[in-house]
Amino acid sequence: MTLATRYLSARTLDTAPVPSTPPGPGEVELAPAYVGICGTDLHIFHGDMDARVTAPAVLGHETAGRVVRVGPGVAGWAPGDAVTVMPLRWDGTCPACRNGHQHICRHLDFLGIDSPGAMQQRWTVPASTLVRLPDSLPLHRAALVEPTAVAVHDVGRAGVREGERVVVVGGGPVGVLIALVARAAGADVRVVELNTHRRLLAEEQGLTTWDPASADIPTLVAEWTGDAGADVAFEVSGAAGGVDTAVDVLGVRGRLCLVAIHSRPREVNLHRFFWRELTLVGARLYERRDFEKAVALVADGTVPADRLISKIVPLTEAPAAFEALEGGGDVMKILVDCAGEAQEAAV
Amino acid sequence: MTLATRYLSARTLDTAPVPSTPPGPGEVELAPAYVGICGTDLHIFHGDMDARVTAPAVLGHETAGRVVRVGPGVAGWAPGDAVTVMPLRWDGTCPACRNGHQHICRHLDFLGIDSPGAMQQRWTVPASTLVRLPDSLPLHRAALVEPTAVAVHDVGRAGVREGERVVVVGGGPVGVLIALVARAAGADVRVVELNTHRRLLAEEQGLTTWDPASADIPTLVAEWTGDAGADVAFEVSGAAGGVDTAVDVLGVRGRLCLVAIHSRPREVNLHRFFWRELTLVGARLYERRDFEKAVALVADGTVPADRLISKIVPLTEAPAAFEALEGGGDVMKILVDCAGEAQEAAV
Repeated sequence: MTLATRYLSARTLDTAPVPSTPPGPGEVELAPAYVGICGTDLHIFHGDMDARVTAPAVLGHETAGRVVRVGPGVAGWAPGDAVTVMPLRWDGTCPACRNGHQHICRHLDFLGIDSPGAMQQRWTVPASTLVRLPDSLPLHRAALVEPTAVAVHDVGRAGVREGERVVVVGGGPVGVLIALVARAAGADVRVVELNTHRRLLAEEQGLTTWDPASADIPTLVAEWTGDAGADVAFEVSGAAGGVDTAVDVLGVRGRLCLVAIHSRPREVNLHRFFWRELTLVGARLYERRDFEKAVALVADGTVPADRLISKIVPLTEAPAAFEALEGGGDVMKILVDCAGEAQEAAV
Repeated sequence: MTLATRYLSARTLDTAPVPSTPPGPGEVELAPAYVGICGTDLHIFHGDMDARVTAPAVLGHETAGRVVRVGPGVAGWAPGDAVTVMPLRWDGTCPACRNGHQHICRHLDFLGIDSPGAMQQRWTVPASTLVRLPDSLPLHRAALVEPTAVAVHDVGRAGVREGERVVVVGGGPVGVLIALVARAAGADVRVVELNTHRRLLAEEQGLTTWDPASADIPTLVAEWTGDAGADVAFEVSGAAGGVDTAVDVLGVRGRLCLVAIHSRPREVNLHRFFWRELTLVGARLYERRDFEKAVALVADGTVPADRLISKIVPLTEAPAAFEALEGGGDVMKILVDCAGEAQEAAV
């Protein structure tokens, strides 16, 4: 048996013993050390993904831990190895897979949504999902690799180049990670965020932030860019107004990278896309190279993981942590300690 | 004096004598031979562009003709030279111009909208706008170069590559030109068009067409592409439903090139952009290299100009031709004969 945090029904989680799965051929059993709680986990918690999630469902897909056992035919991994997991399994045969876009596989199995996730003491996954961590990287920091891989993918999709001016609309965990990754790529970055706590946290990382409640963002961008407009905008807010802001700040041939999930159609100023020859780029998840780059960025401190972790809670208190996160903006990333190594504490 | 067709007020045109302008320094006086009537001209005629157009306004920006006189300091052009006009004048100093995107100049002067156009017996333009025509190219065909340059620009913005599957939503003059240019680039093309006459005309050019009133276009695309979806879609219809169709037909990493002008915001399925990592690309006008390529495509018959010209009318009958064009779909391109060389006649 293994202790696991499970989604039961809308707004109901528990932490309870579940049978553990011995690793089959090509599989590896892990001991997850830390698991981050993500916006998607909150969507599941709210019942918004019941059409896709089969309850009871073990949550969690942002993790770092160690190999416990390897199944038959698994080479290159041994007990004790520090790893993170790229939580994707694809069919390899659909048109997207055949074109090299496995992360958009038509039958994608996202571990932690479509199949059991990492919020448990033992987790069995395909060996193909493992990504090696440097021994020097503390595992709680490495739990930030997965959201960092999202940011790396987004910055890559937008094609951010050195010297470009970039506006990130939305300063939650993913927005700040995008800002940090874009800055590391040589861009000059501004973060637009309503929440004061999140702005302060971004400012502590040396990022310049703007409060859209107290200033007109397109005016600020015009001043900042000598009236040229921004080269790139990232829409990470998920709000209709965020789309408008991201469109409005872009200069001629600007690129808008769509990161947030807009489940409803949004009104978009297509005339502006025509008039300024803008580009809108959708970005989803990550590819293996994004994950490997994310490991490097977390390991070398480009991503200051410690500063982004608001709190670490034990597995038994994960359900309560979901409720706390609903309060929203004053918290960045909460990690669940699956191994019992940490007590509930501010880091 | 020169006879000119002018916009006076919503739904009112005339053809009347206006003073001709002798060519100043850097300018050239032309005798336009033929001028195409464009969708933009119809918008002006309807009064939709009164905020931008100062009446009385000489219309027309799709032309071919001959040089009559050159102004002081003009080198390289002589009376009798066959030319078309890239009808753009830019300030050269705005951020877009400084970045090499002169066609998106903030103070763009579009000849025929913002300043006097080609529907007159004599037209004085900057020598910098002239594009040389091969002597072998009949001038009535060369009047199709400007809309062909639009299509070349659109196909370039979408990055159409050999072997790609392309859906063109809207089979009017620009849609058919895009289809022809994309096919010349090696793409496999389908044209979606409601109007039977326009479908037949496209079919005569060897293009496969689909009627969205009698078939579900995404289903047809799925069958055609083995369920992979199209690589590229062009939205040329200007209708809200056209945007939806263009989004729906695209496969993973598909590109939607936005050609039609949507003056109102449109609801866009942004979730699909995220889920399939789609790209939306705005395209506006053309650059000089597009114009030069368009000359080559019209000259070598890739663009069968004769088949796209529905009718040629004398300058004095241009006002009536605008009214006829309002009827819509059964007409493709109407040319105005400024030199009196042709009588009203089907070509």
